[in-house]
Amino acid sequence: MKITDIELTPIAFRDPPLLNSVGVHEPWALRTIIQVHTDEGLTGLGETYGDSGHLERMRKVVPALLGLDVYALNAMHAAVADALGGVTGSDRHGLTGTISSGGTVDRVFSGFEVACLDIQGKHLGRPVSDLLGGAIRDRVPYSAYLFYKWAGHPGHEPDEWGEAIDPIGIVDQARALIDRYGFGSIKLKGGVFPPEQEIAAIRALREAFPAHPLRLDPNAAWSVDTSVKVAEELGGLLEYLEDPTAEIAGMAQVSERVRIPLATNMCVVSYEHLAPAVARDAIQVLLSDHHYWGGLTRSRQLAAICQTFGIGLSMHSNSHLGISLAAMTHLAAATPNLDYACDTHYPWNAADDVVLPGALSFVDGAVPVPTTPGLGVELDPDALALAHQRYLDCGLRDRDDTGYMQRFDPSYERKLPRW
Amino acid sequence: MKITDIELTPIAFRDPPLLNSVGVHEPWALRTIIQVHTDEGLTGLGETYGDSGHLERMRKVVPALLGLDVYALNAMHAAVADALGGVTGSDRHGLTGTISSGGTVDRVFSGFEVACLDIQGKHLGRPVSDLLGGAIRDRVPYSAYLFYKWAGHPGHEPDEWGEAIDPIGIVDQARALIDRYGFGSIKLKGGVFPPEQEIAAIRALREAFPAHPLRLDPNAAWSVDTSVKVAEELGGLLEYLEDPTAEIAGMAQVSERVRIPLATNMCVVSYEHLAPAVARDAIQVLLSDHHYWGGLTRSRQLAAICQTFGIGLSMHSNSHLGISLAAMTHLAAATPNLDYACDTHYPWNAADDVVLPGALSFVDGAVPVPTTPGLGVELDPDALALAHQRYLDCGLRDRDDTGYMQRFDPSYERKLPRW
Repeated sequence: MKITDIELTPIAFRDPPLLNSVGVHEPWALRTIIQVHTDEGLTGLGETYGDSGHLERMRKVVPALLGLDVYALNAMHAAVADALGGVTGSDRHGLTGTISSGGTVDRVFSGFEVACLDIQGKHLGRPVSDLLGGAIRDRVPYSAYLFYKWAGHPGHEPDEWGEAIDPIGIVDQARALIDRYGFGSIKLKGGVFPPEQEIAAIRALREAFPAHPLRLDPNAAWSVDTSVKVAEELGGLLEYLEDPTAEIAGMAQVSERVRIPLATNMCVVSYEHLAPAVARDAIQVLLSDHHYWGGLTRSRQLAAICQTFGIGLSMHSNSHLGISLAAMTHLAAATPNLDYACDTHYPWNAADDVVLPGALSFVDGAVPVPTTPGLGVELDPDALALAHQRYLDCGLRDRDDTGYMQRFDPSYERKLPRW
Repeated sequence: MKITDIELTPIAFRDPPLLNSVGVHEPWALRTIIQVHTDEGLTGLGETYGDSGHLERMRKVVPALLGLDVYALNAMHAAVADALGGVTGSDRHGLTGTISSGGTVDRVFSGFEVACLDIQGKHLGRPVSDLLGGAIRDRVPYSAYLFYKWAGHPGHEPDEWGEAIDPIGIVDQARALIDRYGFGSIKLKGGVFPPEQEIAAIRALREAFPAHPLRLDPNAAWSVDTSVKVAEELGGLLEYLEDPTAEIAGMAQVSERVRIPLATNMCVVSYEHLAPAVARDAIQVLLSDHHYWGGLTRSRQLAAICQTFGIGLSMHSNSHLGISLAAMTHLAAATPNLDYACDTHYPWNAADDVVLPGALSFVDGAVPVPTTPGLGVELDPDALALAHQRYLDCGLRDRDDTGYMQRFDPSYERKLPRW
């Protein structure tokens, strides 16, 4: 079954003013929706980053993919690598660490791979999880992903979630998310306020939710010493501490001095980072993400690597919509050693989804694994057209949390570590 | 598609008196042929070890597999682990190192997994390689697998291959194998004669076949010091030296002192061996083998681990027939980082195969990858019945190279290292 055409549709969807260690989310988040068409009439869906550089790299490889068989994933990966010819990607938001040329290939390949698995599943009449060895859980737990945030984007009305800039605001936000979705774990995106304030927020969460596993992710906002200090204070309260400081060397120094597991989606983001991280025992938990680990089958291999080297496994998320949520859910369902509830931004962006409603839902904090053929989601053409028009209209072409922050606070500096 | 029945048929096939570091091959090699039947009428084939302990462990897990879906490979692996309940396997021939409980699960699981992939491929109308990401080569190169051997089993006529107990005999054997199959690489099973004699054989092979990559595998017959000495003498002549000495610790000591890549299928034979081997840089090449690495999908994961940690990848073989050759070929075809020609015993045993002829062939030392659905091989019921009858008649239930040697040389001792 040959690939006859590939459509790449950049889209924009509304995003609240979520704060992080490099700035604040802009009013529009960007993604690209991939539609892979075949000579047998089946179409597969993928969802990936929408930044201009990534979009350009994807456009560059499309001609090399036309004519390939949808089962030829190994050949497709090689074709992507050839077409990119050693190009090294980058992003402007700086939240995903260094991107190697191997990592760039995996990022570009991923969305196409997911679309091909969607086609394979439809062809076979089986859910994508069956192509990954079969689901070993019928529901995938996600965590409540808390953010410090402004009440609304400057110059606009407050959004439905309201402000969260202190422990009370964070606890209220957690309660709102848990009431609506039933989440059984909580992650706080930190790195926004001085560490003491974020420690206070974690303590407040622990008090309000005594049984919910907690995590904190300051996105490398801290020095090694600050990381150690926070880890000592929060040790008993967190299931893991995520990216307290930058780079494998920094994480290894923290790891040596603390007992709490350290997790990352910043210093180990492609295969070449694994050997040095293992050699230095820099991390105890990896947050996988099929969008940059080369799709679902390669993420299953990553899980095997983690299991083999005694690294715990969790799942990272960027702002995303339903196609990605479906792919993440199939992958998580078919990954026996997924040790933690997965991250998802979905609650922040779900209102603008481009898939038809009904296929994905949260029940007690978990997404039931779709059992229909392929990913189990279908595009809503009207929603896609609207989201593409928003992309054309909004003017954003690259995520730039720092630049957006500086529009309101010209003195804001991008600085890691900040504390 | 549910598993309704599983047939395990132990078989015996003729094996020449091939010498190794623990004795000599008996007149009959044992295997088990697996037939997995489904409620949709499709049947899948697997081939695995035939020793009594392994057969018993497989019989023990069969009830736990009945009723499972053929796509539920993750659940099937867990079911095998549960049914075995931490049992640790062993073998009497001692050529595969220590077998952990995890390794035992992978050994038992493997044959069933291959059979399920055969069914999946038939169901889909696609070769098994397509279930592994697709073939990236249409032919898989194998090496000429040379053995020191007696002219025939004691008390019987010489076999067609004749005697090989010195460099001239080895070169003649190489020539016969290469003339018939076209092999482009050569492996010599050593550990039989004192190292100087095997060094002489390698030198004779290099002279006779100046362009053929060469390997030597003494199956841990040597001490660390002997290994270093041989490695220094043969350094420039071998593409790798396989298992010169026993255990990760021993291999690490050799590895530290020599420049030639060290390969293994003895000290790293299950997932728990990988982290210590990587930590000590004990090996530079892994000989994978789907029969004990948990089947084809898990062997693809193993390949990803090797690539990630900079370990070269080759493929190991035991005495086997066509179902295994087909499985090995699909796996190798779909493994981009397979860096060396694969091992195979097939030429020594092909005459007694239980699959219908025509599906598998050697062309210029390589097996063209089957493109028909599933593994691409079909059982020959008459050949299977004959091979099973031979199993019943031959009396052998466990491979015992040492005991067989001692029947002719009562003073023979099993001793590793011997030199």
